[in-house]
Amino acid sequence: MPARTDHDERRQRVARLAADLVADGGLAAATHRRIAEAAGCSTTIVSHYFSGKRDLVTATYQEVGDRVAARMEAANGTEDPLAAILEALLPLDADRTRDWRLLFTFLGLAATDAELTAEQRDRAGAARAQIETALDGDKQAGRIPSGTDVAASARHLLSLVLGMGMQALFDPAEWPPDRMRAATADAVQHLRAPQACQPVARRSSARLPKAY
Amino acid sequence: MPARTDHDERRQRVARLAADLVADGGLAAATHRRIAEAAGCSTTIVSHYFSGKRDLVTATYQEVGDRVAARMEAANGTEDPLAAILEALLPLDADRTRDWRLLFTFLGLAATDAELTAEQRDRAGAARAQIETALDGDKQAGRIPSGTDVAASARHLLSLVLGMGMQALFDPAEWPPDRMRAATADAVQHLRAPQACQPVARRSSARLPKAY
Repeated sequence: MPARTDHDERRQRVARLAADLVADGGLAAATHRRIAEAAGCSTTIVSHYFSGKRDLVTATYQEVGDRVAARMEAANGTEDPLAAILEALLPLDADRTRDWRLLFTFLGLAATDAELTAEQRDRAGAARAQIETALDGDKQAGRIPSGTDVAASARHLLSLVLGMGMQALFDPAEWPPDRMRAATADAVQHLRAPQACQPVARRSSARLPKAY
Repeated sequence: MPARTDHDERRQRVARLAADLVADGGLAAATHRRIAEAAGCSTTIVSHYFSGKRDLVTATYQEVGDRVAARMEAANGTEDPLAAILEALLPLDADRTRDWRLLFTFLGLAATDAELTAEQRDRAGAARAQIETALDGDKQAGRIPSGTDVAASARHLLSLVLGMGMQALFDPAEWPPDRMRAATADAVQHLRAPQACQPVARRSSARLPKAY
């Protein structure tokens, strides 16, 4: 089906250009006219691909999702997939920072839109599943204790990475790449080298549940 | 200056009503006409308070910020300020979920807007500072070891809480309140009851920095 493929490829190319406009200047900057100028086509063609802002931001989100998926795939092929997957999710360079910016532009609409919320839920679920797979691999290789709660550990690691990325996007000076890398490595090391002795300095009387 | 105070109070009341419209139906739902209807005033008065969408979303963000600040203040007066501050930041009930929704609507614009980015940076910095103060209190009371790196621990806890809230907003079924509470309590307990012995099961050769 070459006609369909051509259409999809052209749409993807235009989505990429539109995403660049959004990442640089926000949704307001990505008018049909400017997208048409960047793509060297007519506004009619742009309207054909994206009927409105919601459609446009969804296309840029899918483009980001594809890029994230490719990074995760590459991370899976490394010597330490767990650490590599977590780093793939962080805004450690210009490309990933661009994608975090686009992610947040999308989430700004998704926060009050059930359909877009479901898309983000699925993407986050896929990322969590990849982290779980890497943890299972660690367990099989004896790098983490056999009793590790894989689901809870994956939730913990993904929360940490998303919370760091969220802060880094709005406060890059507080979150230089080395700090994000070190915090991630520290969390991974904590799973891999748990300390197996008595607690010290436990003087609090707070009631704290032990499992999650 | 009663005139000024009246103006501010009215603006705050209208911002609250506008925020309810945004939280329910997104930015598109908060037209000047609907805000005027909700507030029982003319669209001219609404335009006087909020000149455009950016102005409106900034006002709703400030309203959210005030509510978060009040929750943090209340948390400071509890028996366990550290745990209470972290819980105050999480979307554990309808009110806080509403505020997370408004936060993300704001961040959707802030992601590509330097001035709004600075507002979010300051708010997050203030939250981190409150967590640091609570950690200092824990240290003085001997609840956490004297060698605890307060700045790094505050960054870790805030990242965890923000990452959980971000996921919970888009996937509440995966993140019921009890799971968020337990994960937070677990992170606090880990700081308060560190294990002081030899690492076990350390079979990985990965190079992992120890401090962040």
